[in-house]
Amino acid sequence: MLSPEEQLTEIRRGTQDILIEEDLLARLREGRPLRVKAGFDPTAPDLHLGHTVLLNKMRQFQELGHEVIFLIGDFTGMIGDPTGRNATRPPLTAEDVQRNAETYASQVFRILDRDRTRIEFNSRWMGRMSAADLIGLAARHTVARMLERDDFHKRYKAGKAIAVHEFLYPLVQGYDSVALQADVELGGTDQKFNLLVGRQLQQSFGQPPQVVLTVPLLEGLDGINKMSKSLNNYVGITDAPEEMFGKIMSVSDELMWRYYELLSFESAAAIGRLQQAAAEGANPRDFKIRLGMELVARFHGADAAQQARDGFLRRFASGELPENLAEVTVHARDGRLGVAYVLREAQLVTSTSEALRMIRQGAVRIDGERLADGRREIPAGASHVFQVGKRRAARITVLA
Amino acid sequence: MLSPEEQLTEIRRGTQDILIEEDLLARLREGRPLRVKAGFDPTAPDLHLGHTVLLNKMRQFQELGHEVIFLIGDFTGMIGDPTGRNATRPPLTAEDVQRNAETYASQVFRILDRDRTRIEFNSRWMGRMSAADLIGLAARHTVARMLERDDFHKRYKAGKAIAVHEFLYPLVQGYDSVALQADVELGGTDQKFNLLVGRQLQQSFGQPPQVVLTVPLLEGLDGINKMSKSLNNYVGITDAPEEMFGKIMSVSDELMWRYYELLSFESAAAIGRLQQAAAEGANPRDFKIRLGMELVARFHGADAAQQARDGFLRRFASGELPENLAEVTVHARDGRLGVAYVLREAQLVTSTSEALRMIRQGAVRIDGERLADGRREIPAGASHVFQVGKRRAARITVLA
Repeated sequence: MLSPEEQLTEIRRGTQDILIEEDLLARLREGRPLRVKAGFDPTAPDLHLGHTVLLNKMRQFQELGHEVIFLIGDFTGMIGDPTGRNATRPPLTAEDVQRNAETYASQVFRILDRDRTRIEFNSRWMGRMSAADLIGLAARHTVARMLERDDFHKRYKAGKAIAVHEFLYPLVQGYDSVALQADVELGGTDQKFNLLVGRQLQQSFGQPPQVVLTVPLLEGLDGINKMSKSLNNYVGITDAPEEMFGKIMSVSDELMWRYYELLSFESAAAIGRLQQAAAEGANPRDFKIRLGMELVARFHGADAAQQARDGFLRRFASGELPENLAEVTVHARDGRLGVAYVLREAQLVTSTSEALRMIRQGAVRIDGERLADGRREIPAGASHVFQVGKRRAARITVLA
Repeated sequence: MLSPEEQLTEIRRGTQDILIEEDLLARLREGRPLRVKAGFDPTAPDLHLGHTVLLNKMRQFQELGHEVIFLIGDFTGMIGDPTGRNATRPPLTAEDVQRNAETYASQVFRILDRDRTRIEFNSRWMGRMSAADLIGLAARHTVARMLERDDFHKRYKAGKAIAVHEFLYPLVQGYDSVALQADVELGGTDQKFNLLVGRQLQQSFGQPPQVVLTVPLLEGLDGINKMSKSLNNYVGITDAPEEMFGKIMSVSDELMWRYYELLSFESAAAIGRLQQAAAEGANPRDFKIRLGMELVARFHGADAAQQARDGFLRRFASGELPENLAEVTVHARDGRLGVAYVLREAQLVTSTSEALRMIRQGAVRIDGERLADGRREIPAGASHVFQVGKRRAARITVLA
């Protein structure tokens, strides 16, 4: 059992904000298991590594002996979009919620300790709440403070509609903390406003205000945007082992260290030693392999990790050809050909501008190495394996 | 039975706005009794003539054969002030509401036809409403439109707090129209925004939108501010006959005609004839007496009206002294004394500035006539009955 101060040091790792750290320390000193809440969307889950930053933090609290509450916000999900404008967001039925919860469970317990996780549905208290009670809740917050929330503020200034019920959802989320008497609420940095509403409502209900702890939003494979399915820059936690491993191998060295910080369960000291070794000339690819194996092992087991690594090395790093790789020839001009033309003439892209865009996005590899320079020229006679994204690949020989 | 067009002409009298008049005409042409809703506060009622402008309009609809719904907004009253900041506004109990409703009934049925009035309490439908339903309601209106409401707009701009639940109350009032399937909603001009929310919600629930009809806010006895208890410029409908009569006699001629328009049940043609007579030199006091008698008779019966008039004329108009009138002497300066000094030295006011303010407000009478000129001087040797407001009076003799 770690001391409160030691626990705090562990908890600080990879967090963005802790409000208020002294309050957290004081509660840790009470020596009891804290109630640590994190809320999740009740829509069909398909978690990616971005979500696991939060799950990892929850797991850490479990390892420190605290009670983790996995809260599924089914109450609002069952309301759906009351305006009826969004046909793609129909209200969830109780069966949908149950099914999604089971899908969640099958995914999150690859990280969380099932025996130390309490799953709650906020419909348990919100479903009983009357309109009169909700009015009483809404009386505890002001319009001006709601409009301070970044997205509301921007939409209001831009003349974009905010429906009145959108002001009620942060209150519902905040009331969940009251109902659960949460000691700590975890969330992404984009949730900070809502987490603070929880603090304020707890005070208003005579409870000590929860500690708010935010974790950073994980960058996607492009190293720029937040990881998300819609941007297709994600690693799904149900991705097949080879796919997951290959995606990790494709990130930049800089992003690799960020992933180590936020995704690895290795100690800060161990990661420090790896960084030291890299600074002294070790090949970062070795550390990328190590990270890829850790993550594949977490979601698919050690054997799968081993196989994914071996397959990857065989196909790309060691120069062997993957099975059934297309063999294509293109023609040089003046003894060479720019890579964008190589890709277009091999029909891996439809235009040179697409080729350049894919290169900029880091989606093009040559012999398994990411291609960074869109102006690179391939001399006549050369032969390389080119990959564009994860589905398009060919061995291309440039003829004179 | 009047034709729809004739009904519309009657309904137009003394209204501020009718939205939309063509819609009203179309519904009148349907030849069925319309459901005409007006909402009332559930707090302990003590109605004054200002409230009766609306009641008179309701009565008019009854006389035209329509169904009038006297809606008591007990749902929000039973919530009280959820912030707990306003200790003077505790939540009403069901017993309070019932008692207040009975008090209302004893007052409003001096104007409304009891047999053609449907009394409703909005707790009947709102009390059953769940938090989820209320969220669905709130989804039908935008924050930006709420902030267009005049008082919200002013408070937001001035940095004064608006609690989130204040955005829900117009929606509750609007939903009352949905629940009642109101054809018409009546209210003061200050209610226009809320009445329009009712229109919008009805449309959103697939109902034809109600016609909104506003009546002006009645000026108080000062002729300037809205009649209200807090400004003490009101005539309560439970005021004793002499008090009611005396207050009507104290208003300016201009205000008298305004009161005729909004309070009298005499026809527009009959009132036109009185105005004609006044223009030709008849004494407006006679018309004031006529109006005072009509109003006293409405609330206390014809005998009481007769007695109130006789008492008033005996005491003031005919120069007789009220019983137990204080006799005071003050001293002239240079053979005269300004009325402000007269009032101060007789201790009817505490300062000359109060005296001048009361004169400006029309609250000072000399021998029963309203005193308009604050610079008037009383010569030594004169003796008059002065009144300030309704409680302070004395016969003051100015000594040389």
